[in-house]
Amino acid sequence: MRHHALAAALVLAPCGAGAQDATALARIRDEGMNRSHALELFDHLTTVIGPRLTGSPAFRQSVDWAAATLRGYGLANVHLEAWPFGRGWSLDGQTAELIAPRYLPLIAFAEAWSPPTTRVIEGTPVYIGDLPPDSVRAHAAAIRGRIVLATRPQDVFITKDRLQPTEHDQPVPIGAPRANNATGPLPRATFQQTLHDLGAAAVLRPTEGSEGTMFVLGSRASTPANAVPSLIVSAEQYNLLVRMLRDGVPARLRVEVRARYLTADTNGYNVLAEIPGTDPAVADEVVLLGAHIDSWHSATGAADNADAVAELIEAMRILKVTGARPRRTIRAAIWGGEEQGLLGSRAYAQQHYAGDANARAREKFYVYLNNDPGTGPIYGWYAEGNAAAKAVLDEWLAPFRDLGARRNVMEKIGNTDHLSFTALGLPGFNTIQDYTEYDTRVHHTNMDFAERVPAEGLKQAAVVLASFAYQAATREGGFPRAGTTP
Amino acid sequence: MRHHALAAALVLAPCGAGAQDATALARIRDEGMNRSHALELFDHLTTVIGPRLTGSPAFRQSVDWAAATLRGYGLANVHLEAWPFGRGWSLDGQTAELIAPRYLPLIAFAEAWSPPTTRVIEGTPVYIGDLPPDSVRAHAAAIRGRIVLATRPQDVFITKDRLQPTEHDQPVPIGAPRANNATGPLPRATFQQTLHDLGAAAVLRPTEGSEGTMFVLGSRASTPANAVPSLIVSAEQYNLLVRMLRDGVPARLRVEVRARYLTADTNGYNVLAEIPGTDPAVADEVVLLGAHIDSWHSATGAADNADAVAELIEAMRILKVTGARPRRTIRAAIWGGEEQGLLGSRAYAQQHYAGDANARAREKFYVYLNNDPGTGPIYGWYAEGNAAAKAVLDEWLAPFRDLGARRNVMEKIGNTDHLSFTALGLPGFNTIQDYTEYDTRVHHTNMDFAERVPAEGLKQAAVVLASFAYQAATREGGFPRAGTTP
Repeated sequence: MRHHALAAALVLAPCGAGAQDATALARIRDEGMNRSHALELFDHLTTVIGPRLTGSPAFRQSVDWAAATLRGYGLANVHLEAWPFGRGWSLDGQTAELIAPRYLPLIAFAEAWSPPTTRVIEGTPVYIGDLPPDSVRAHAAAIRGRIVLATRPQDVFITKDRLQPTEHDQPVPIGAPRANNATGPLPRATFQQTLHDLGAAAVLRPTEGSEGTMFVLGSRASTPANAVPSLIVSAEQYNLLVRMLRDGVPARLRVEVRARYLTADTNGYNVLAEIPGTDPAVADEVVLLGAHIDSWHSATGAADNADAVAELIEAMRILKVTGARPRRTIRAAIWGGEEQGLLGSRAYAQQHYAGDANARAREKFYVYLNNDPGTGPIYGWYAEGNAAAKAVLDEWLAPFRDLGARRNVMEKIGNTDHLSFTALGLPGFNTIQDYTEYDTRVHHTNMDFAERVPAEGLKQAAVVLASFAYQAATREGGFPRAGTTP
Repeated sequence: MRHHALAAALVLAPCGAGAQDATALARIRDEGMNRSHALELFDHLTTVIGPRLTGSPAFRQSVDWAAATLRGYGLANVHLEAWPFGRGWSLDGQTAELIAPRYLPLIAFAEAWSPPTTRVIEGTPVYIGDLPPDSVRAHAAAIRGRIVLATRPQDVFITKDRLQPTEHDQPVPIGAPRANNATGPLPRATFQQTLHDLGAAAVLRPTEGSEGTMFVLGSRASTPANAVPSLIVSAEQYNLLVRMLRDGVPARLRVEVRARYLTADTNGYNVLAEIPGTDPAVADEVVLLGAHIDSWHSATGAADNADAVAELIEAMRILKVTGARPRRTIRAAIWGGEEQGLLGSRAYAQQHYAGDANARAREKFYVYLNNDPGTGPIYGWYAEGNAAAKAVLDEWLAPFRDLGARRNVMEKIGNTDHLSFTALGLPGFNTIQDYTEYDTRVHHTNMDFAERVPAEGLKQAAVVLASFAYQAATREGGFPRAGTTP
């Protein structure tokens, strides 16, 4: 039935560029919706490889797999680009239990780049959450060798998503920007150094998540010389421990972190792959698609951001297998280090697009399309305040209303990889996807597993990405940049 | 300021029973709202004692503490009543980890009355979730000595509360009745027996909770002779393990359950305490208030049901300290074994109110007021389809609108201790409290900690309970029973 419909489209379409576009878009949709690899790609990233903390062995495994997969699909110029990250780390085991006066296994997770404990630590914890930070040193004797409950009981919980649906059922940004991905403003680093200097054995802190959901990040500046082994604990259980100490209950904990700093390869990597342009007049222009493959470490980085990587690889596969002939070059970029501050995309943008030496490359840069926050089908795009760009994005989005596309919005979105390009004045945009519970239960949590990602959305998003790439790569004229008229 | 207001009430109130009532109710409110012990009582149950699984040492500790506390407050006839429960059990430790090809601590909890494992078990689990139950025996060789993933991946999650607010902001029952507290219909017992006979080392099953919230119950029929050590695992992680096996990932787990069956005291207990009636004509009539003190074992049984026990003890304290002189006897009953099938209340009702020998006791039974599902302030009561009773409850509730009381509803509510009395034709009613996320995140979960219970609600609920008890114990005439007219 669907092949018949496609054949009809091929026969009925008039000649010319518009007809080629319609045919190509129909092929993209057919391939992506009916013979999708997206779920299989997503499953490999989340089930086989698992979490992909930048600089970890699994991160390297993921970029090697992505490159091999893109090569296997016949993409051109597939290669890794390294940039200095400076750390490797692996969590090999941990223990976090209340062992007396009753037993309770704690929901806990070592922070990324935590030093290991020197041994299994058992003892009554010491609570210093009510001490002014500058008076901690005065309690050296109480802290040495102890498990430290470092902060006050958690009474602030993340219960609202940053992006909320409007009356048009579109998410738009609300409130404060997303919390900085890096954990360490200077005071915390100083605090860690103080606890380290005082000989604390381990430090526990509560999450701002609730009911078993924990946000688990880390500071890659942590070393055994400046930090204490640290675990995030479910807020309810952390609060219970503080109350037990307050009530004089002789609580004893067992805590261990088994982790290694790895030095064999401390680079971060990006993966690049292309479908070369076919129009000599514009083949040196680049339509760039991107998504970050690195994740935090306590789940499998499913919605943040394996879904987008699977969609991106699948979009490239669809373009290749459908024989799309873009006029401009379509390039896929799979970034590392996003969670530590957009490191991979920034390294790439700086190397290839910053400064006088890259002035011509900037001219030849057509548009950057990023896919990160949210999950599920692509509803539209953030137009970053660029009305002329929005008009183009609107035109590209129109064919996908029957697949769940809704509309583009003028709003900007922060904290993801398009910023590495917009910072250079280049046009960069991010998808709008479903944001339900993304800030409360999903991203950066111990619960960012496959259940957060609707399988059907993977197909649609790959089709939309491939179609946007194709439309960008065949469009007449330059892409409207911010502050210019179309 | 508040003492001045109370003095004014004492002066201005006219003489007679109504005036005595008004004065007594004002004293109750003043004591309960301004000098409450409810939070301290709640904290002792949840922080100091912790979970109170029927038949566990902590359960016995809790009933002894409740009795001592009631005695300390000067209540009369404080005593325990034992009934045969038949099991004692204690969880001393557990391990549940993915150890290869990568490390992941599992959110897991041993089911109540699980047998212990014979040792720490390490190995690749075997997935039998796709086998028809009657074909499991044919796979004996694959199961012996192994960690068994017993069911299909979890794709049904509890995402809706059973009670939903109506347009009047009142919870009313929806949908199916609450899941049976006991885990074991016969098929599961048969399945456990089969796995036991085949020599399975441990069995893992996913929860229907999500994002780190787990429902953890158990079957007290489990023994090392008929069951396998069993743990509930977070659904997302369980599903991941099944996918890893499906994808051929060489996953290895480390699992251990350290548990003991205790035989020194296998009774369940109820705690009784009274304020004797003062009117010789009706002092032998009983107004019974009740709440269950037992809980499941994976959190601290805060909303289910330490809050209600704290409110009940506090209500009795308030009545005692304010010098309330009820005409009828007010009796508090703190039940055990509710979670295993209303065992404590049923034992009590059967012993004291069932059969021909207790006909006169039934006549002298005025009303039973129970407090269990939900948490926070008492909004009203379920009138159990008894319109005449509702009219009385409405009268009693009216003075508490300014404290958050809303209205009584005609609906019935199931699955809690008033059923032990209504089954005998006695009038029994249950509070309406806030039910938000009660079925999805709170009751029977590993997250039923103090954060689920608003501290201000404890005060209000104790005041409403004390006031209802007082009003019931001073009311003129009999309490309208179901099927009778007032």
